[in-house]
Amino acid sequence: MRSEFDFIKNIKDKYGLGRIGDDCAILPKNDETDLLISSDMLVEDIDFRLDWTTPESLGHKALTVSLSDIAAMGGTPTFALLSIAIPEHLWPTDFLDRFYAGYHSHAKRSRVELVGGDVSRSPETLVIDSIVLGEVPKGGAILRSGAKRGDAIIVTFRLGGAGGGLRLLEQGERHSADLDSWKSILLDSQLRPWPQLGTGPFLQRLGFVNSMIDISDGLSSDLMHICQASGVGARINADKIPINLNLPSLTSDPNDQLDLAVNAGEDYQLLFTVPDDKVDELSSDMIGDDSHGLFTAIGRITPNVGVIELVRDNVSEILEPKGYRHF
Amino acid sequence: MRSEFDFIKNIKDKYGLGRIGDDCAILPKNDETDLLISSDMLVEDIDFRLDWTTPESLGHKALTVSLSDIAAMGGTPTFALLSIAIPEHLWPTDFLDRFYAGYHSHAKRSRVELVGGDVSRSPETLVIDSIVLGEVPKGGAILRSGAKRGDAIIVTFRLGGAGGGLRLLEQGERHSADLDSWKSILLDSQLRPWPQLGTGPFLQRLGFVNSMIDISDGLSSDLMHICQASGVGARINADKIPINLNLPSLTSDPNDQLDLAVNAGEDYQLLFTVPDDKVDELSSDMIGDDSHGLFTAIGRITPNVGVIELVRDNVSEILEPKGYRHF
Repeated sequence: MRSEFDFIKNIKDKYGLGRIGDDCAILPKNDETDLLISSDMLVEDIDFRLDWTTPESLGHKALTVSLSDIAAMGGTPTFALLSIAIPEHLWPTDFLDRFYAGYHSHAKRSRVELVGGDVSRSPETLVIDSIVLGEVPKGGAILRSGAKRGDAIIVTFRLGGAGGGLRLLEQGERHSADLDSWKSILLDSQLRPWPQLGTGPFLQRLGFVNSMIDISDGLSSDLMHICQASGVGARINADKIPINLNLPSLTSDPNDQLDLAVNAGEDYQLLFTVPDDKVDELSSDMIGDDSHGLFTAIGRITPNVGVIELVRDNVSEILEPKGYRHF
Repeated sequence: MRSEFDFIKNIKDKYGLGRIGDDCAILPKNDETDLLISSDMLVEDIDFRLDWTTPESLGHKALTVSLSDIAAMGGTPTFALLSIAIPEHLWPTDFLDRFYAGYHSHAKRSRVELVGGDVSRSPETLVIDSIVLGEVPKGGAILRSGAKRGDAIIVTFRLGGAGGGLRLLEQGERHSADLDSWKSILLDSQLRPWPQLGTGPFLQRLGFVNSMIDISDGLSSDLMHICQASGVGARINADKIPINLNLPSLTSDPNDQLDLAVNAGEDYQLLFTVPDDKVDELSSDMIGDDSHGLFTAIGRITPNVGVIELVRDNVSEILEPKGYRHF
């Protein structure tokens, strides 16, 4: 059966909609600036479960998913809209007030102003559409389509935390006062993720980042998006992938840790490529608490169009994109 | 129980969100132009029923509701985003293709480019979020809040058609080849409404329109939005209200016709106010097929804050806003 990606590609081709297909649409603003805009729909029991989160965390996450799209183009967010279809049983509760409190707290910290949206009733399912506008210097947005053969592939911070948190939720773990800190951190990675708002524009200003995307679907899926948009392939090294430092507490199996880091999504880290001779320049900006810093080079762009190889113990295997489609 | 309007007002006041509350948010674009943006959520079995419409008509209407918001500020639409949560049972069908065909046909005719959005799965309910951007000369957007005492209250074209169409649907009528033309026209008013894309910017260029809104919730509700935003009241004359020409075929009761014209929404006509001494200027632009033209003056703004009087047979009664919240 066709996927959402296939469907969107089909619509794009059929109607000649050239601005569709990246993390954000890029629109003309003025002589210095382009406007970015992104819309992300979160659906109850598909993208979140109400018994797994709090209204505040859900409000926070609804904003993160769209802010992350702005960051992934190298942009800075400015304004937001929020449309919500709320089931009858939640309307008389304090759900919406708490949801907006979580959303607003994040918006204020991220210097984003909520300027509009819609509130509608829903028969049963809670649906949230999170829309964020942003800005980027004119012509300077970093696309998925700019990766070049030989580019180094780099990710920010660490991967697999959100996937680990999802597994804990599936195992019945919930936030509580006496929860082990590693569990609490992993749950927060899934339920209250932060976008890379500072890093996105920083990378844009460097001027040599060839392509970028945020890791929402999972490293394997999102790297494939870059490969397909750029007409290239990729080879990544298992032992370079920066595993979330709390994953070993969840699972001692290194292959399981790697699977969470490679295939689970929703870490909202940035995945980008730079020319090989620029990696050293980037290294001088690397900071971190250990051998893996803010930026980690995990592999290289290849000419093998649409193919991602994963090198593990000197053996190369084909990595099929299988990012979790969230829940 | 609080309404959606109360909730939005509460959020607006609580967080100091000054840009919320009109048909569109107004954002800075460049030295000559302001950017407009609107988001409208349509929820299955709340705002539409799949067995009452076609996918093409639903796509058309999803765009109209947001285009109408741009027109209501005096703006011209430019770009659109469309996010959709689609239930599993519709995914393998041709629903989405036909929905986008209806949407795209309208977008092309309206010179709006679809630039982004999202496609998500939904457990059961189809939810559509329609987002449209537009432009208006800087500082020139027409707000709900500018109505002044003594202003003439004017509506475009005729009212009640969409409400009449809804009643036909409730009575079991559907489009068919041998349907009476009046029924067909009323059904189309409900299922495939058109926004006032030319009239909105025309009124903006006149320079003397003090306030404007589109009639989506119903004349009584939308006039109340203007009154509350402007700190004024209104008096309207029953015999001036331009009744849809096909309503008499549906109901011979003049009071019933008036009720549909005043309280049923979704006609997507424009409701605006101008200084009394400008009505004649506007009249020279009035065109039409009968005694009611493109513009009809239906009453006057009063100092009676938040009160709408309806004058019928020389008797004045208080008109409570009771626009149908759609289905």
